[in-house]
Amino acid sequence: MFSVTVRDHMMVAHSFRGEVFGPAQRLHGATYVVDATFRREALDADNIVVDIGCATEQLRAVLDELNYRNLDDEPAFAGFNTSTEALAQVVADRLADRINRGSLGENARGIAAIAVTLRESHIAWASYERSL
Amino acid sequence: MFSVTVRDHMMVAHSFRGEVFGPAQRLHGATYVVDATFRREALDADNIVVDIGCATEQLRAVLDELNYRNLDDEPAFAGFNTSTEALAQVVADRLADRINRGSLGENARGIAAIAVTLRESHIAWASYERSL
Amino acid sequence: MFSVTVRDHMMVAHSFRGEVFGPAQRLHGATYVVDATFRREALDADNIVVDIGCATEQLRAVLDELNYRNLDDEPAFAGFNTSTEALAQVVADRLADRINRGSLGENARGIAAIAVTLRESHIAWASYERSL
Amino acid sequence: MFSVTVRDHMMVAHSFRGEVFGPAQRLHGATYVVDATFRREALDADNIVVDIGCATEQLRAVLDELNYRNLDDEPAFAGFNTSTEALAQVVADRLADRINRGSLGENARGIAAIAVTLRESHIAWASYERSL
Amino acid sequence: MFSVTVRDHMMVAHSFRGEVFGPAQRLHGATYVVDATFRREALDADNIVVDIGCATEQLRAVLDELNYRNLDDEPAFAGFNTSTEALAQVVADRLADRINRGSLGENARGIAAIAVTLRESHIAWASYERSL
Amino acid sequence: MFSVTVRDHMMVAHSFRGEVFGPAQRLHGATYVVDATFRREALDADNIVVDIGCATEQLRAVLDELNYRNLDDEPAFAGFNTSTEALAQVVADRLADRINRGSLGENARGIAAIAVTLRESHIAWASYERSL
Repeated sequence: MFSVTVRDHMMVAHSFRGEVFGPAQRLHGATYVVDATFRREALDADNIVVDIGCATEQLRAVLDELNYRNLDDEPAFAGFNTSTEALAQVVADRLADRINRGSLGENARGIAAIAVTLRESHIAWASYERSL
Repeated sequence: MFSVTVRDHMMVAHSFRGEVFGPAQRLHGATYVVDATFRREALDADNIVVDIGCATEQLRAVLDELNYRNLDDEPAFAGFNTSTEALAQVVADRLADRINRGSLGENARGIAAIAVTLRESHIAWASYERSL
Repeated sequence: MFSVTVRDHMMVAHSFRGEVFGPAQRLHGATYVVDATFRREALDADNIVVDIGCATEQLRAVLDELNYRNLDDEPAFAGFNTSTEALAQVVADRLADRINRGSLGENARGIAAIAVTLRESHIAWASYERSL
Repeated sequence: MFSVTVRDHMMVAHSFRGEVFGPAQRLHGATYVVDATFRREALDADNIVVDIGCATEQLRAVLDELNYRNLDDEPAFAGFNTSTEALAQVVADRLADRINRGSLGENARGIAAIAVTLRESHIAWASYERSL
Repeated sequence: MFSVTVRDHMMVAHSFRGEVFGPAQRLHGATYVVDATFRREALDADNIVVDIGCATEQLRAVLDELNYRNLDDEPAFAGFNTSTEALAQVVADRLADRINRGSLGENARGIAAIAVTLRESHIAWASYERSL
Repeated sequence: MFSVTVRDHMMVAHSFRGEVFGPAQRLHGATYVVDATFRREALDADNIVVDIGCATEQLRAVLDELNYRNLDDEPAFAGFNTSTEALAQVVADRLADRINRGSLGENARGIAAIAVTLRESHIAWASYERSL
């Protein structure tokens, strides 16, 4: 199995609902350093999983929809705790939609799975992995 | 599949028995930077895998049992080479015990697997993964 | 010249005023990974610059005053752009106050300078250094 | 499942054929920081996956065959795009050959799988994993 | 003293002349992860050293002049060993020219010094620092 | 001013004397990831500060005198707390001796200063810098 990973980041404000979150129930923020991994069984005709430049552009486009925002004000997240792991799924699902729509090119339709990791600090991160 | 990882560290002395270890048969030491990963299929009612603060506390508690010690003097490790990979299993098993005892909360009983990575330097690390 | 550095982090929301900031004028957030460096010409009687455990506690105390907050709502920052470099000075000055008040112990009065670096992402960080 | 990973690097020149590569069709170069991971179900008699010193030597030997070279001039890569993911397979297959030939010792024959990751920058990397 | 640092990278081919370089006399390549640091005594009217977005753009522009090239073919480097430390000076001098020409904005004329670090691997890097 | 830095590591056991050290008064251990920086005003005839390969060898030689040892048993450290900052000085002084003896070559006599950083974990490190 092959994979290619590209890294970018976003900077958002948000708050959590639920006693388990303690002081993180207050409005605060995070830099999420985001790693998007694309997996496939065999390389394409160019001998790659996906073009790194193209993957980087598509990840940037997904993060631009979230970046420099207060997620508490986003209708898409109403009544939804935007935890690191939940946001990993949001990013992965939006990348999957782009692959399915052809935004990463025809060859990228051979991608079998996506994994997204969001690093919220030097000591904590979360991931979500799904098939395509 | 979702996962959350938290990082901490411990500083121990030890030695190895076996010619394969060369100069590491002498008493020496290591900083182990420890990554504990918790995996589950679906998020809990708070939209998380496990509370990062709680996971950090439990990992700290497990590492405190080993930290600032000469492992050669620990009865638990008599006749046992405390290699990086073997210690990864020790930490993973002790975290699993804590989950099973409820120390990470009732929701944490939904955790499906644990992976523990011990980084002994910038150029070598080892992992152990098990189901729960 | 000797130095000791300890690392911790904080997660805050804020916004900036000024056209130069573009989309960062919106309410957003950041994880700041914070490195606090303590410098001195000669080691103390224990052969250290400062106790790493004590330095870590004092840095934690300074960051707890800022952590999990919307800095736009903090009276201390009214009419003040909380840029990464400006926050580096805030943290450094508050650590200097603690050294001067004796919170790091009597030996720490021999510290000659402090440098604080705030990393806002994997590709951008800022520092402030001052003497004591 | 246990694993041990060792890290080293190589510095090569190469170019790519195919419009998708844009400016990377020109002769350029890369430092590949290479992580080789060895997996096995149970530890050997010394309580290890593989000796870290021995694994490091064998990875070094594989990389020395590629290091400080223009890959465009290597007969082994004639008509072959030496993408990061393709080179990850080359390194993994050569390590597998060495395990099968006994270069990592008799105990290393218990290794079940190898994964190799090549990091081409702080924002992009690729992996290949195979069984033995 | 304040500073802001931004990170980017370039991927080049080159070779060295001189026996001291051993196998690096052959055509090979490197990824240089480049950190550009801007220093000034006092913050500007926006409470910053330099806008991070603007600094990132200017560093990108300087690296684009070198990226995806064989430096042995660049007239600017004829008869010049493009060692990591020598390239750090090239990047720093070109950034200084841009500051002096006003490309980083009028406020950036208050920058007192630039430091550039090029990381050629996880175990070696070089820097050059100059005043403005 | 130019600099070149090379990285290596050592794994040692030791204990500290003094109440300030708390549990670190027990025999424990550390991996020290060691960065050795060489500074000079102008590059040599080969356009370098020092050959990276040669600097790496000399750092390795200095660390081999300490590696895989219990520092409490070393006569050189009798009655001496081998704190991270104190060991940084030991490594720097031994590198300086080697430069003065000519072990890094005649050109290396132009080196003006050395800085050594020892990283004891992902959250703490110490440095010592001296002129030559």
